[in-house]
Amino acid sequence: MATPVSTRSVKWEKDVEDAHGMLDRPLLYKSCTNTTSQMAIVGVNNCPIESLDYEYMAAFVVYIGCSTALAAAAAALCAYIAPAAAGSGIPEVKAYLNGIDAHSILAPGTLLVKVIVGSILGVSAGFVVGKEGPMVHIGACVASLLGQGGSRKYGLTWNWIRYFKNDLDRRDLITCGPAAGVAAAFRAPVGGVLFALEEVTSWWRSALLWRTFSTTAVVAMVLRALINYCRSGHCGLFGKGGLIMFDLSSRQATYTATDLATVMLIGILGGLLGALFNFLVDGILREGRALQDHLDSDHLSDHLVLHLRLALAHDVHPCPPELAGKCPTIGRSGNFKNFQCPPGHYNALASLFFNTNDDAIRNLFSAGTHGEFGVSTLLTFFTTVYTLGILTYGVAVPSGLFIPVILAGASFGRLIGTLLGSISGLDLGLFALLGAASFLGGTMRMTVSVCVILLELTNDLHLLPLIMLVLLIAKTVADCFNKGVYEQMVRMKGFPFLEVHAEPCMRSLVAGDVVSGPLVTFSSVERVGTVVETLRHTGHNGFPVIEEAPSAPAPELCGLVLRSHLLVLLQGRIFTRGRAKTSAGEVFRTLAPFDFAKAGSGKGLKVEDLDLTPEEMDMYVDLHPITNRSPYTVVENMSLAKAAGLFRVLGLRHMCVVPKTQGRSPVVGILTRHDFMPRYIRGLYPNSIPR
Amino acid sequence: MATPVSTRSVKWEKDVEDAHGMLDRPLLYKSCTNTTSQMAIVGVNNCPIESLDYEYMAAFVVYIGCSTALAAAAAALCAYIAPAAAGSGIPEVKAYLNGIDAHSILAPGTLLVKVIVGSILGVSAGFVVGKEGPMVHIGACVASLLGQGGSRKYGLTWNWIRYFKNDLDRRDLITCGPAAGVAAAFRAPVGGVLFALEEVTSWWRSALLWRTFSTTAVVAMVLRALINYCRSGHCGLFGKGGLIMFDLSSRQATYTATDLATVMLIGILGGLLGALFNFLVDGILREGRALQDHLDSDHLSDHLVLHLRLALAHDVHPCPPELAGKCPTIGRSGNFKNFQCPPGHYNALASLFFNTNDDAIRNLFSAGTHGEFGVSTLLTFFTTVYTLGILTYGVAVPSGLFIPVILAGASFGRLIGTLLGSISGLDLGLFALLGAASFLGGTMRMTVSVCVILLELTNDLHLLPLIMLVLLIAKTVADCFNKGVYEQMVRMKGFPFLEVHAEPCMRSLVAGDVVSGPLVTFSSVERVGTVVETLRHTGHNGFPVIEEAPSAPAPELCGLVLRSHLLVLLQGRIFTRGRAKTSAGEVFRTLAPFDFAKAGSGKGLKVEDLDLTPEEMDMYVDLHPITNRSPYTVVENMSLAKAAGLFRVLGLRHMCVVPKTQGRSPVVGILTRHDFMPRYIRGLYPNSIPR
Repeated sequence: MATPVSTRSVKWEKDVEDAHGMLDRPLLYKSCTNTTSQMAIVGVNNCPIESLDYEYMAAFVVYIGCSTALAAAAAALCAYIAPAAAGSGIPEVKAYLNGIDAHSILAPGTLLVKVIVGSILGVSAGFVVGKEGPMVHIGACVASLLGQGGSRKYGLTWNWIRYFKNDLDRRDLITCGPAAGVAAAFRAPVGGVLFALEEVTSWWRSALLWRTFSTTAVVAMVLRALINYCRSGHCGLFGKGGLIMFDLSSRQATYTATDLATVMLIGILGGLLGALFNFLVDGILREGRALQDHLDSDHLSDHLVLHLRLALAHDVHPCPPELAGKCPTIGRSGNFKNFQCPPGHYNALASLFFNTNDDAIRNLFSAGTHGEFGVSTLLTFFTTVYTLGILTYGVAVPSGLFIPVILAGASFGRLIGTLLGSISGLDLGLFALLGAASFLGGTMRMTVSVCVILLELTNDLHLLPLIMLVLLIAKTVADCFNKGVYEQMVRMKGFPFLEVHAEPCMRSLVAGDVVSGPLVTFSSVERVGTVVETLRHTGHNGFPVIEEAPSAPAPELCGLVLRSHLLVLLQGRIFTRGRAKTSAGEVFRTLAPFDFAKAGSGKGLKVEDLDLTPEEMDMYVDLHPITNRSPYTVVENMSLAKAAGLFRVLGLRHMCVVPKTQGRSPVVGILTRHDFMPRYIRGLYPNSIPR
Repeated sequence: MATPVSTRSVKWEKDVEDAHGMLDRPLLYKSCTNTTSQMAIVGVNNCPIESLDYEYMAAFVVYIGCSTALAAAAAALCAYIAPAAAGSGIPEVKAYLNGIDAHSILAPGTLLVKVIVGSILGVSAGFVVGKEGPMVHIGACVASLLGQGGSRKYGLTWNWIRYFKNDLDRRDLITCGPAAGVAAAFRAPVGGVLFALEEVTSWWRSALLWRTFSTTAVVAMVLRALINYCRSGHCGLFGKGGLIMFDLSSRQATYTATDLATVMLIGILGGLLGALFNFLVDGILREGRALQDHLDSDHLSDHLVLHLRLALAHDVHPCPPELAGKCPTIGRSGNFKNFQCPPGHYNALASLFFNTNDDAIRNLFSAGTHGEFGVSTLLTFFTTVYTLGILTYGVAVPSGLFIPVILAGASFGRLIGTLLGSISGLDLGLFALLGAASFLGGTMRMTVSVCVILLELTNDLHLLPLIMLVLLIAKTVADCFNKGVYEQMVRMKGFPFLEVHAEPCMRSLVAGDVVSGPLVTFSSVERVGTVVETLRHTGHNGFPVIEEAPSAPAPELCGLVLRSHLLVLLQGRIFTRGRAKTSAGEVFRTLAPFDFAKAGSGKGLKVEDLDLTPEEMDMYVDLHPITNRSPYTVVENMSLAKAAGLFRVLGLRHMCVVPKTQGRSPVVGILTRHDFMPRYIRGLYPNSIPR
């Protein structure tokens, strides 16, 4: 530490008299030690916050250096090792569970960067970021790792989890991951279940409810055990607050009609500000990428810190007399920080800024602290957090959105409460809680899950009706302007996401209109060379199989084969010299059904892996045993919107389009996810469809 | 009242000395007034409980008379006016939302009987019944009434809610009803949302979450307002306990490994007893209907009451000295009932039996009352409630299952806690809560919703991990034996319920195997007489329309028409002399699109309502404008299980089966809900499918 702590109490006594006069002196003259910054927590205690003062330029340089180094390390890891680990990860997980297996979204490398380095470094760098989003991504990564029976690349292979070698169970398992992540981050097991169901998953089935519930129950039990173990104190701040992070259960429970009006106002304003937040985040990510690179939000943040110093230096208040002994706080965390103030005084802004994010939220939520934070303090904090929240979300480090939104919302709510104090008799801490709810509703557009998460965070069941009201109003207002922030991110990142509601333009088209590309089909007994060539020269993953003469009098649709199954069959070399059927029994003597099971990521066969002789290439292979004989089909004149609904609700990858009239080819085309993307349709019919 | 209250205090003073000796005297000699029975609440104060004593045979007869009369009235109303109102109603609502529009499930008459008479009379008769199940049914009825724009039969018609004239929105609206019911009954808005999603609905979409959440938010606000209004006291016991019915928030939050083992034991036993409960309820309803009629559970209940009197008379305990002033309770409700005991004593059984159900639960849940209820008291109460719960559920009165299960579970949990008191240091009230959770998990097999409902009932967030654990164990154990009680009821009542998982027997059949009946089709331009005759002589609701020469070179499937649309079209009399097409514009000059909207219950056209002249019968009608041109189709060789999955997930009524090969009739048959019922399939293939 820069100055030994032991001298402090002596100085305090001396300084009691001229407390106010001292504001003009250099700040560090009083040298109170701040032990609550995020820096302190991750062990970089060599640059405590007081060294920000210009007297200690060296320490200031160290602080900036630490911060920049941490941020740069996090950003570099993300940029060069695992780009998928940047951001909150929730949009990626959402996209994955919609059926988009984008590159390395859930790869072990992503997990490693996200958990071990990125998230910790990002939070340590002092950004206004949360660990919640990354936890969701981490949960999904771990689930994916378990679901593929480990990873051969990293030498982690378990045979006992082969149960998940199919898409459906793997999807369910990966839905449990985000639930566990939220349950762990907020210590909110029920909130986790609801978050997974409301925000993350695209398909819901009743078994999922029960599976996610089991997952989060285990998370809750483990959390409990760890918190109990850590009561002894050797885990740092972990477990602080017990299972309920911000326990507010002693709050008043009555309110009047005027209070209700105030609450509605918070809902409306929160909705507006939430929509603005989404708009700005989207704008920065979409248009301002270059601008942002130029600005370097890290420097901007340091810049802000410098300016804030001025605000900080003058935000000194005498302690309320009724809180003698509690104010200023002594210890690692708490309200009424003494930060560089004379004894008997506290620094309001420091109580928010130079605290862990959790403690800042706790301070804002705290009841009975009317007057602790003035209008200017709250306004400064709100503007800073709101701005930083928008800027930081685009930085290439793993970062969550929950904490910035809760911080901004809570300070906004408390600000409104302070301004309307004469009208409404509600506690300011309650205003902060409602403000946080309105911001969460306004940006993320979740209802039940946010409601339950807030409930589990605060244990404040009496206020459930008010929180519900605020959430509903905020969501309704914000929905008038734009979509939820995660949906925006999914769209912006270009994932071919299948929306619940088809675009209006799809109603004027039919399924046959979009399957214009050349259709690649196989005959039910096909020449090996033809199959291999087709696999080499197309990227398709599914091929219709046509039954032709002499097996059938007229060509008819036999079914659909998948590329992965074709490769396994070819690898097995069950070929015949002429066009002859092979019995399924014969195939399964060579190949076990398990060989056709879904491979883990990066473990599937590739067409280049096949090593067939020219002689083999001239032989025939019977596709019947691996053909899906009853693929889902739609008639070509079905409305594209209706087909899209069917495609989504069944969670398909391929859907065959069959002709309406007889006497034509038995299959008109294949619909895949990309055929339902508005951009693709607009490319086909640029004039008929409004943008 | 039989004896004036004013004499009591005088006697009390006199009786302090010989308190124990007095137990042999006639009970009513001391004439404490019981004002807490359910009788008192509904205003039949002329037969208070003390009159049970043989000295006051007249009063006893009045009690039995009241009880029987109330029960008989409730039963008669159900039996003769609205049979659909009997029972809890949850299975009926569940079936309705699965797509089964059984007779008058949600009719206004059912609502009337259920809400105004049945439920109130049933609870007043002193049965161990809850109002929760009926509230769910009432919610669904109200939603249905709103959704059809009122009821013409009862003169309630509103035009402004025509928005719901389609199946999808009506279904969503009716899903909101149960959510509102649970939210109101338990004052648990989030629990209501989850109950609707987990237990009641068969289809889930993200909009539903948001809609049910809005509904229950309104319920919560209204409840709050009413409770606030009733604080003044002129609403009787309504609003007692505030928004949280059994507030236990001050409970301890630590537990050891031994405690965990105990909790797991409760989960296992609760699961076993829950499964047994389901088995017995099912058995009584299925086989023992006659037996039950014979037994007359009302008499049995009275019988039990008589026997309980003996137990009651001897269950007198001295008040614990540390609770002086709180024991015995004075007032309408509370713990430590003085019921006919000397002063300074309380009657443990009476504290449970002669209380409202809510108060009994509150007493069982109450913390720090170690030793209030002995093993014999709890055992007596548990056995009685468990037995009565099973018997009462089959009685033809509106009755819920939640309250009996919670009562039985809580007494069971407290019993276990008392027995294991030496091993586990947990509070007995907590044991009661966990017991209730285990029984709810064991009978109803819900997880998240029960967890949240219990949370909202007790405000005991610290114990969430324990409750989750107990629920999971109980559900897992009970699932080994049978299905949840509501699923059993749905099956027993013979509703053609579409299960999530198809029966295994369906995997060995294909869609073409079950559509054996003669197929009734229409030509795309059909003779009016043919249509009318077909509608008269078949009960089908959907008909394939075949395009024939000269419009098409070969017969092809044009689409599907619905009976209701056909009737509207015929009523509009848009006929032509010969086989000629009518333009859609021509049709919609006569008929508005709204004429084809879904009618409210009982308001649709019937074929008998048509009054066509013989000349008109010989004319032609063009079905093109009302044909659904792209019905969902499956190929005849699709596995029946796969077709069933498709049918269920899309929520269909009709699905066309098309041939695999060309040159045949363009449609092989139509699949409806009944084609997927195991009973029907077993009838077609009795030998090939194991029962």
